[in-house]
Amino acid sequence: MNPDPSRTVAKQAEPTGSSLLVVGSLALDTIETQNSRREEVLGGAACYASFAASFFAPVRLVGVVGSDFPRAHEDLLRSRNIDLAGLERASGRTFRWAGRYAADFNNRTTLDTQLNVFETFRPKLPAAYADSAFVFLANIDPVLQVEVLGQVRRPRFVACDTMNFWIGGKRTELLRVLERVNMVLLNDEEARQLSGKDNLPAAAGVIRSMGPAAVVIKRGDAGALFFSEEGVFAAPAFPLEKVVDPTGAGDSFAGGCMGWLARTGDTSPAGIRTALVVGSALASFCVEDFSLDRFRSLDEMTIRARCAAFADLVRFERVRF
Amino acid sequence: MNPDPSRTVAKQAEPTGSSLLVVGSLALDTIETQNSRREEVLGGAACYASFAASFFAPVRLVGVVGSDFPRAHEDLLRSRNIDLAGLERASGRTFRWAGRYAADFNNRTTLDTQLNVFETFRPKLPAAYADSAFVFLANIDPVLQVEVLGQVRRPRFVACDTMNFWIGGKRTELLRVLERVNMVLLNDEEARQLSGKDNLPAAAGVIRSMGPAAVVIKRGDAGALFFSEEGVFAAPAFPLEKVVDPTGAGDSFAGGCMGWLARTGDTSPAGIRTALVVGSALASFCVEDFSLDRFRSLDEMTIRARCAAFADLVRFERVRF
Repeated sequence: MNPDPSRTVAKQAEPTGSSLLVVGSLALDTIETQNSRREEVLGGAACYASFAASFFAPVRLVGVVGSDFPRAHEDLLRSRNIDLAGLERASGRTFRWAGRYAADFNNRTTLDTQLNVFETFRPKLPAAYADSAFVFLANIDPVLQVEVLGQVRRPRFVACDTMNFWIGGKRTELLRVLERVNMVLLNDEEARQLSGKDNLPAAAGVIRSMGPAAVVIKRGDAGALFFSEEGVFAAPAFPLEKVVDPTGAGDSFAGGCMGWLARTGDTSPAGIRTALVVGSALASFCVEDFSLDRFRSLDEMTIRARCAAFADLVRFERVRF
Repeated sequence: MNPDPSRTVAKQAEPTGSSLLVVGSLALDTIETQNSRREEVLGGAACYASFAASFFAPVRLVGVVGSDFPRAHEDLLRSRNIDLAGLERASGRTFRWAGRYAADFNNRTTLDTQLNVFETFRPKLPAAYADSAFVFLANIDPVLQVEVLGQVRRPRFVACDTMNFWIGGKRTELLRVLERVNMVLLNDEEARQLSGKDNLPAAAGVIRSMGPAAVVIKRGDAGALFFSEEGVFAAPAFPLEKVVDPTGAGDSFAGGCMGWLARTGDTSPAGIRTALVVGSALASFCVEDFSLDRFRSLDEMTIRARCAAFADLVRFERVRF
């Protein structure tokens, strides 16, 4: 869409908020849907989150790629003003993931996972990143998530994601992360596994008692629930006629939300509600094409229009008895 | 809760809207959850829908029960001013259903279905019902749904539910019903089966082309989507810490919605949005206890409070760029 990344830069306004540090995976994904297949396209949680956040705040990306990682991918990220000083280029192959989606996109099968350079990754933050005010720890080993927090001086707001593998295998380490984050985003099954509760509001209550004041439970195309001291917020997923590839939707949701929080600085429950709507908008764009392709041609006006459409989606007149 | 039904009547204000005709099943349900079990409690789609609607409009219930149907159940319905002139008492046993819920309540197994008197049921409407302005055809054989419509003179607004069994086995007859209804409510799997589309907005588009201007896709605890000429409305399900028994939630949702429409007379898309919020509130009460037990102690002030809580659940400040 934008063969010359520098032209994309020219179109974008400079983001004005605080810096957002994003740590996690960059990957080459092979995706099979019912209608199509893409081989070794740009992916990874940190990649999606960074790109989504970059529409709102200056992003610093910490992760690792192998020597086979295409230069064009780095150029694409740089074209969004994503700071790659923290991106390690290790000798070896980039992390690879392959998966196949069912017809309704609600179930996917992992066909292959090759950790490659990601297996021995230890995040080393450039000294300049120590002042990061906002931090998003995408889904990686909780041991690494704690190591990252040890390298940031006094973050204002930290959020993390995680997955079943760490909840089951590194629970103690994960609990140590949760003690130090303001917000956790995880899916419904992960919330149940972590809390031992089947009921989601009950699960959120247990998880909040582990540390994070804000718990966001992601439910795919059923939207998300946000639990905090002021109650519950339900954000439906934006219903789309055209879903091409849901990979990265949850990461784009988190990235869009964190980018908005970094931009506005409003981390109150009300501020987080609005940020989650922005995250939902970014997630809805993400699924409209493979990889980060839909983001390439995205601009603020289009994002603004979808946020307005989102407001329309949930609008109703007060029930008058 | 209310051993003397007449006292319940005394508490309630007279509903003021147009009459709502409800046709469908009355049943004796045996329910197993992870923590509890109830045998032969009052159930059936028309029963839940009528009771939920009765908070807002005068209800006329058409259905059949056997000679074993407890008189106390009839008294309970009458205590809500539900007109039972159309309730046939046949010789034989009442329709019975038994099911078991998984821990997260999202999956249930039917253990037993005995149609009994329901098997030969042919709805015969009392002459006085021919003027019914609002009609809800709960999930029954589409042949019977058409027969009901033949006995109503000029209904203002007709809605129907259906199920996989009729979509697969009586498609032609079901399509004949859909041509004559203003609104259809069905769950996501049924919408996919009926339309042949996996994508829900696409499915809704196909179903709208079959007749109903309004299509409501129910998604259990993921809420509902309402498609009409003015766009999409997403109503999340009200998140509850205490779910006891989800049986009848979808029917209470439909009944609450139809009751509200009959009360207000506003069947515009905006009016339906509000009615669906009321339906969501009724569904949320329904699941808080077995059978219709939670409804017994319900009053308008409590419903009003939940509708307000629902508004709070989806509230967010406009995204200001």
